[in-house]
Amino acid sequence: MEKLTEETLSSSYLYRGYIVNVRQDRVRLPDGKTAFREVVEHPGAVAVLALDENDCAVLVRQYRQPVGSLLLEAPAGKLEPGEEPLSCAKRELAEETGLCGERWQEAGWVYPSPGFCNEKIHLFITRGLSSTVAAADGEEHIEVLRLPLAEAMRLVESGEIIDAKTVLLLQKAYLITA
Amino acid sequence: MEKLTEETLSSSYLYRGYIVNVRQDRVRLPDGKTAFREVVEHPGAVAVLALDENDCAVLVRQYRQPVGSLLLEAPAGKLEPGEEPLSCAKRELAEETGLCGERWQEAGWVYPSPGFCNEKIHLFITRGLSSTVAAADGEEHIEVLRLPLAEAMRLVESGEIIDAKTVLLLQKAYLITA
Repeated sequence: MEKLTEETLSSSYLYRGYIVNVRQDRVRLPDGKTAFREVVEHPGAVAVLALDENDCAVLVRQYRQPVGSLLLEAPAGKLEPGEEPLSCAKRELAEETGLCGERWQEAGWVYPSPGFCNEKIHLFITRGLSSTVAAADGEEHIEVLRLPLAEAMRLVESGEIIDAKTVLLLQKAYLITA
Repeated sequence: MEKLTEETLSSSYLYRGYIVNVRQDRVRLPDGKTAFREVVEHPGAVAVLALDENDCAVLVRQYRQPVGSLLLEAPAGKLEPGEEPLSCAKRELAEETGLCGERWQEAGWVYPSPGFCNEKIHLFITRGLSSTVAAADGEEHIEVLRLPLAEAMRLVESGEIIDAKTVLLLQKAYLITA
C-alpha cells in the first residue's frame, strides 16, 4: 500500500478557533508531485445509543446552528482534553438526558469526514438505564425522546433522522437485535 | 419545537479557504441569552455504493492526509458549484473506479458533523455496472477493490472500514438485501 501514501513536507496553521483549527499541509504525492491539503482539526467526539428495557432508543432533539434546523440525534459531544471516550460518553449521556447506563458496549469509531477533517467519533451502545443527577450544560437546550428502535429506523428511512452518527448507531443496533 | 431554536444575531467570516470557510455566528438561545457558534462551511458531497451482479461492493482505498492513513471507502467526492448530487455521484464513480451504473437509487442524505459543520452528504446506491472511459482526477491515487457485501460488513465489524458514510451505506445495503 506504500505507493498510495502521501508524505507531509510542511504544515502551517491558517486558523485557530474555539472548536476547530485549520492547517494547510504541503504533501508529496505517490507520483512525486506536490499538492496542498486543507485539514480541519477537531478534538474528537463520542456518540451514545442508549436503549431501555423495551428496546426504545433515547434520542435528543436540539437546534444545530451549522445546519439551521432541529435534529434528532443520539446523545453526543466533544472530548475534553485528556478525557477517555467512555468517560465522555457517560458524561454526555448524563448531561443531555439525565440517564446513566449500567452495561456499556464499545461499538468502534468512525471518521465522519476524513477527506478534510480529522474528527474521530467513538461509538457506544448502553443498556440498563436509570436516572442520575447530572449537571446540565448551560448552553444546551434539548428535548429528550424515547422511540422504539423499529420506529427510529422508520424515521431514518423517511429522512427525519439525518445525523450520520445516529443513523449509523441505529442501523448497528438494529442489525444486532434483528 | 420553536422553543429550542436559536436566532442568528450576527455572522462574520474568520477564515476563507480552499474547501472550507469558518464563520462565527452570534446567536440568541431559547432562554434569551446569547452565545457564539463556530461554523465550518463545506460545499457538500456525495457517496456511492456501487454493487455488482454478485452483490460485491466497489470500494476505493486512498490516503487521507487529515487522518494520516489509508482508508477503504465508498467512492465519494465534493459537489462542484451548481452540480446536481446525482451528476456528481456519476462523475465521482467514473473518475475513481472507471465504472458507470445503470440503475440508481437515491438513499437520502446525512449530516456527518452537524455540531460544527454544514456538510451534507448525498447517498446513492447503484447497480448494473459497466466500464466507462473516465478522465481520472490527477491528484487522486486510488486502488479499486470489489468485496462481497458480507465481507465488507465483517470489515466494518473488525474496524477496518471506519469511514462513516461507507459504514452507513454498507449497513443500509445489507439491511435491504438481508
